[in-house]
Amino acid sequence: MAYLDENFLLHSPTARRLFHEVAKDQPIIDYHCHLSPREIASNRRWADISEIWLGGDHYKWRLMRANGIDENLITGASSPREKFQAWAETVPYTLRNPIHHWTHIELQRYFGIDLLLSPDTADEIWERTNATLAEPDFCVHGLLKKFDVRVVGTTDDPADPLTDHLAIAASDLSTVVAPTFRPDKAFLVDRPDLLAQWLEKLETNSGTSIATLSHLLAALQKRHDAFHAAGGRLSDHGFDCLPALHCTDEEAAMIFNDARMGRAASPEQKEKFSFYLMVFFGQLDAAKGWTKQLHLGAFRNVNSQLAAKLGPDTGYDTIGDSRQGAALINYLDALSSNGALPKMVIYNLNPSDNYLFACLTGAFQDGTVAGKIQFGSGWWFLDQKNGIELQLEALSSTGLLSRFVGMLTDSRSFLSFPRHEYFRRILCNMVGGEADRGELPDDFTALSQLVSGVCYGNAERYFGFALKE
Amino acid sequence: MAYLDENFLLHSPTARRLFHEVAKDQPIIDYHCHLSPREIASNRRWADISEIWLGGDHYKWRLMRANGIDENLITGASSPREKFQAWAETVPYTLRNPIHHWTHIELQRYFGIDLLLSPDTADEIWERTNATLAEPDFCVHGLLKKFDVRVVGTTDDPADPLTDHLAIAASDLSTVVAPTFRPDKAFLVDRPDLLAQWLEKLETNSGTSIATLSHLLAALQKRHDAFHAAGGRLSDHGFDCLPALHCTDEEAAMIFNDARMGRAASPEQKEKFSFYLMVFFGQLDAAKGWTKQLHLGAFRNVNSQLAAKLGPDTGYDTIGDSRQGAALINYLDALSSNGALPKMVIYNLNPSDNYLFACLTGAFQDGTVAGKIQFGSGWWFLDQKNGIELQLEALSSTGLLSRFVGMLTDSRSFLSFPRHEYFRRILCNMVGGEADRGELPDDFTALSQLVSGVCYGNAERYFGFALKE
Amino acid sequence: MAYLDENFLLHSPTARRLFHEVAKDQPIIDYHCHLSPREIASNRRWADISEIWLGGDHYKWRLMRANGIDENLITGASSPREKFQAWAETVPYTLRNPIHHWTHIELQRYFGIDLLLSPDTADEIWERTNATLAEPDFCVHGLLKKFDVRVVGTTDDPADPLTDHLAIAASDLSTVVAPTFRPDKAFLVDRPDLLAQWLEKLETNSGTSIATLSHLLAALQKRHDAFHAAGGRLSDHGFDCLPALHCTDEEAAMIFNDARMGRAASPEQKEKFSFYLMVFFGQLDAAKGWTKQLHLGAFRNVNSQLAAKLGPDTGYDTIGDSRQGAALINYLDALSSNGALPKMVIYNLNPSDNYLFACLTGAFQDGTVAGKIQFGSGWWFLDQKNGIELQLEALSSTGLLSRFVGMLTDSRSFLSFPRHEYFRRILCNMVGGEADRGELPDDFTALSQLVSGVCYGNAERYFGFALKE
Repeated sequence: MAYLDENFLLHSPTARRLFHEVAKDQPIIDYHCHLSPREIASNRRWADISEIWLGGDHYKWRLMRANGIDENLITGASSPREKFQAWAETVPYTLRNPIHHWTHIELQRYFGIDLLLSPDTADEIWERTNATLAEPDFCVHGLLKKFDVRVVGTTDDPADPLTDHLAIAASDLSTVVAPTFRPDKAFLVDRPDLLAQWLEKLETNSGTSIATLSHLLAALQKRHDAFHAAGGRLSDHGFDCLPALHCTDEEAAMIFNDARMGRAASPEQKEKFSFYLMVFFGQLDAAKGWTKQLHLGAFRNVNSQLAAKLGPDTGYDTIGDSRQGAALINYLDALSSNGALPKMVIYNLNPSDNYLFACLTGAFQDGTVAGKIQFGSGWWFLDQKNGIELQLEALSSTGLLSRFVGMLTDSRSFLSFPRHEYFRRILCNMVGGEADRGELPDDFTALSQLVSGVCYGNAERYFGFALKE
Repeated sequence: MAYLDENFLLHSPTARRLFHEVAKDQPIIDYHCHLSPREIASNRRWADISEIWLGGDHYKWRLMRANGIDENLITGASSPREKFQAWAETVPYTLRNPIHHWTHIELQRYFGIDLLLSPDTADEIWERTNATLAEPDFCVHGLLKKFDVRVVGTTDDPADPLTDHLAIAASDLSTVVAPTFRPDKAFLVDRPDLLAQWLEKLETNSGTSIATLSHLLAALQKRHDAFHAAGGRLSDHGFDCLPALHCTDEEAAMIFNDARMGRAASPEQKEKFSFYLMVFFGQLDAAKGWTKQLHLGAFRNVNSQLAAKLGPDTGYDTIGDSRQGAALINYLDALSSNGALPKMVIYNLNPSDNYLFACLTGAFQDGTVAGKIQFGSGWWFLDQKNGIELQLEALSSTGLLSRFVGMLTDSRSFLSFPRHEYFRRILCNMVGGEADRGELPDDFTALSQLVSGVCYGNAERYFGFALKE
Repeated sequence: MAYLDENFLLHSPTARRLFHEVAKDQPIIDYHCHLSPREIASNRRWADISEIWLGGDHYKWRLMRANGIDENLITGASSPREKFQAWAETVPYTLRNPIHHWTHIELQRYFGIDLLLSPDTADEIWERTNATLAEPDFCVHGLLKKFDVRVVGTTDDPADPLTDHLAIAASDLSTVVAPTFRPDKAFLVDRPDLLAQWLEKLETNSGTSIATLSHLLAALQKRHDAFHAAGGRLSDHGFDCLPALHCTDEEAAMIFNDARMGRAASPEQKEKFSFYLMVFFGQLDAAKGWTKQLHLGAFRNVNSQLAAKLGPDTGYDTIGDSRQGAALINYLDALSSNGALPKMVIYNLNPSDNYLFACLTGAFQDGTVAGKIQFGSGWWFLDQKNGIELQLEALSSTGLLSRFVGMLTDSRSFLSFPRHEYFRRILCNMVGGEADRGELPDDFTALSQLVSGVCYGNAERYFGFALKE
């Protein structure tokens, strides 16, 4: 088989048939990503391939550093063409890394280029990609249309006024661009200065004065309502490990008051306050039928000096090995015992925890919604063939793959939509291969239902977005 | 290949030959399960397929909840036919879960039905299974005979009088039904009320008055003797994580005295007392050449309110992520250093710990018994294709697969015996496939010895049950 | 395919071509092992196959114990022929363990014997191997030449005078035998008696009187210089888990003074002192462009009484499950923040930590050296097919396989060089198989560069040994 041909990753007849007849043309619901609402609203264009490909992609930056490329050619002052050259020198060394697949799938799908990137082809690819970037359709709205993206779930601060989302909703873009409620800064009781800045913004955008905890909760509730009105159906939180210390209303009020007065919370107080807010946020989601996402297990900015120089999300994060079980159970059980367990998608970052997460979700299913508690798709460092297969295997072996809401890009780049294709190929290969080996029924209709559900239908039913068509 | 045909899971010529010529017709030693001695003694029958299939099967209950089925149709007041219908609606959503395999293998082997269960076939399967259930041979004794089950190892409280076991032994059932010594309640020094109830029962059945720790130990010793006389050759313990705090005779005596007086042990005291008893139980087993089983790594009743409503073993347990290594080493080393290390089968529940467990057993082999310390078969959530393969791989790569005592059902259901067949297919596929790829010698006799040993012969030699024929 | 034929482990055309045309004839850089410099200097020979095969091989001892062989026939007083017989009885039970592969590859490559070892063939193999051992070329230098070993990295105490290394360097042996700086005993502040003995030796061989910490550091620096002059380019450390408590110069000086006076450090003091020294050692390595190795994750001598009887490295160690992430990050970050992060190869022992280690190395790449921070090859219990594949998969999926420095034996035996062949077959099978499935480019030149780099070229470039030719 030729590299990256139409049957890429599809190693049996039924795998190929499932992909080409069922999966390939499903629309995309990219329910969680980090695309910029501003860039969508303004229908952004790009000057050159370096800007769109290398501008913010810390996956590539890490590999360039690992390949001995000087930082100047990665995030420094070098020219776009020089940076592109450094990347072209690195790509031949990425064999077996998912980046080699992604890079060339993106060249094929977005630019119609079948070459492999290397110093030999760098000039031609630079020219051809930049020519394509200059075409009228190569803009955000054109790309969303090209890939039939029905929903984009951005990631947003509750204090954000959602101006861009409202503008997008009023435009003729047929993609729903839904804000996701991600209240990272509400937890900053250990940093009263940063908290105060954020509260000021929240006061403005919620039209609420916030002196006490109850004011804060009211303001957050108003923003949650506003996000809902703007099409939001998900919240999101990222933790190394969930907070687990229970906290009374009085304690939480006192911790907040102190922080409001400029007195920083202790680590224990911060954990208590965080747990308190997480229960509150769970209740907000449960009341509206929203879905809560938990992204657990990253250690961030571990190479502290380099991370301090470049800021967050620059390639200095890693998979962690915190124990997740007790705190996650504690949180789900607190919500379940309150009768306020919302739908959830729970993502882990260390594949050692796959079976823990997959099995744990099964203990909190309550029969009210099919697939209510989801074990989320391979995330970040696990969004690659091995990571995806391990996630699908753990999920299948302990739960219902047929109820899985499937893939999302989690990406900051408009070039990442083919990761849905990548995931679908892996899914079809797994399901089709087993059918051809007699480990699944030879019933194409049943297999098609499974595959189309995971690719699109389940997400459509589960999240309840108000689709435009 | 057709789904679930005679070569199911057998993907190479030698795999097929090993299964059909060697593994398939081996008898079964189901050395650990939760079948009811009462039901065996009384040669139980079943009214309908819901009773035998859905009555106590929390594996199925979890999947029904995950599929959005109301609890009323799972454990509630709905009729057997309604519950069966809810299950029939769920089964098509279980593709890739082992339940889909088990369900249809059970329909084939017990009922001669080749259909796939779904709403379309529910009526027919309801009728046909119930007709088969009414046949004279469809009783406990008939099923044990049909599957050539030579040993059933039940799970029993030392305070149990073993009345059913004695009745079975005196009957003409050719299966040995051996009690397993599982003294869960002896650890309840933190619950003096429950401990007192249990001690009363133990006093009665051991004919011993129990005022002090030494009385307790003497009573337990007597019951251990009685279990041995009734054919018992194994003990069993289940812990999230083994206790690891060392405890003197004086401390243990004091903790027991306090509990006997109604004063609950602290968590630390409970751990000390538990460790003390575990060493004692190890010595009992070592002295008689018994085998001790350790089931480690479950978090139980994590969805606390629902679990409280339905009681234990209703589907609200999960794989845990406690660190196992230090406590397990501490326990084995304590016994080894006392010259009282019995044979052991050690099961883990999180596949992340497979290599830890597999390798650790190798450090405690002492050359006295082949395969003395066993890394137990994939257990509970890991009793499925992926889980079994991972266990076999870790065991093989660090120890002696050829000395493995193999599969057990751990089941509460008389419909679970085909899990031995399932395991055997996976084993034969792994071994046969490697032989056909030149990774194992092309020596059918040698491979047959390995396979027959793991399927039956090793367990027969290792445990020392007094077989009836 | 025949067992262990020339295409062993090579399951596709490109896999076979890569191995036979590219990998097979690459020289060997065995950059980390435990071969004896004395035996290399003296060009040791062996009396019989038991001596060379069973004399110190605790991998085999473990399997013999697991097979129920009495210790007398393993490490006891039995004759070499009796021990060989016991091993011959065990080998047929090792199917699927890597020992079955290694044993027969060694018989083929060193002795030209194609038989499988068993009681049936024991006599013949005993005679033929012993005859071969008597041939003139069957000596250390002959074996190093036969396997084209360009570098052997031994493992050495800084207090060692390196007499053997200097003698080897002055000989006409074309293999570079480089000492590795492994300062285990420098950490013994909790054992003042042992520390004093070692310091005496260090004083002698460094020509330094050591009263204070600064003397110690100066002496270590001198030995580091001397190791460098003798061809050393690597250091090595083994820890269950890295020390992580930061320590000031004053604290370290006080802890050392106390130990020098006979007052043992507390566990906390020992950890602090260890961390202090580890930072110092990192700086030494960084200053000279050396590579630091970290071997993390073993629990040692866990079967304490048997280990006490036979001493360390006798088969009573195991894979551990300590949490590694925070301490490892803390150490790398301390060095990186000091501008003193040397090249590193970091090995883990529990495959559950593969992704943690692979991903973490990526956060500390700084663009100065290609592949600067390496995720080390499958080590000890993981140096087998499954372990190697899992390591390669995690490395490839998160980093640059093309920059990997590849295999090492870590062995105490001169019969272990074929483990490089074993690794190369697995590598070629993985890479070639994917190329044949269209998951890698069908570009033999590119694949050859990857394979030859991992087999030899990367290590040659990365470590900077002064090769003899």
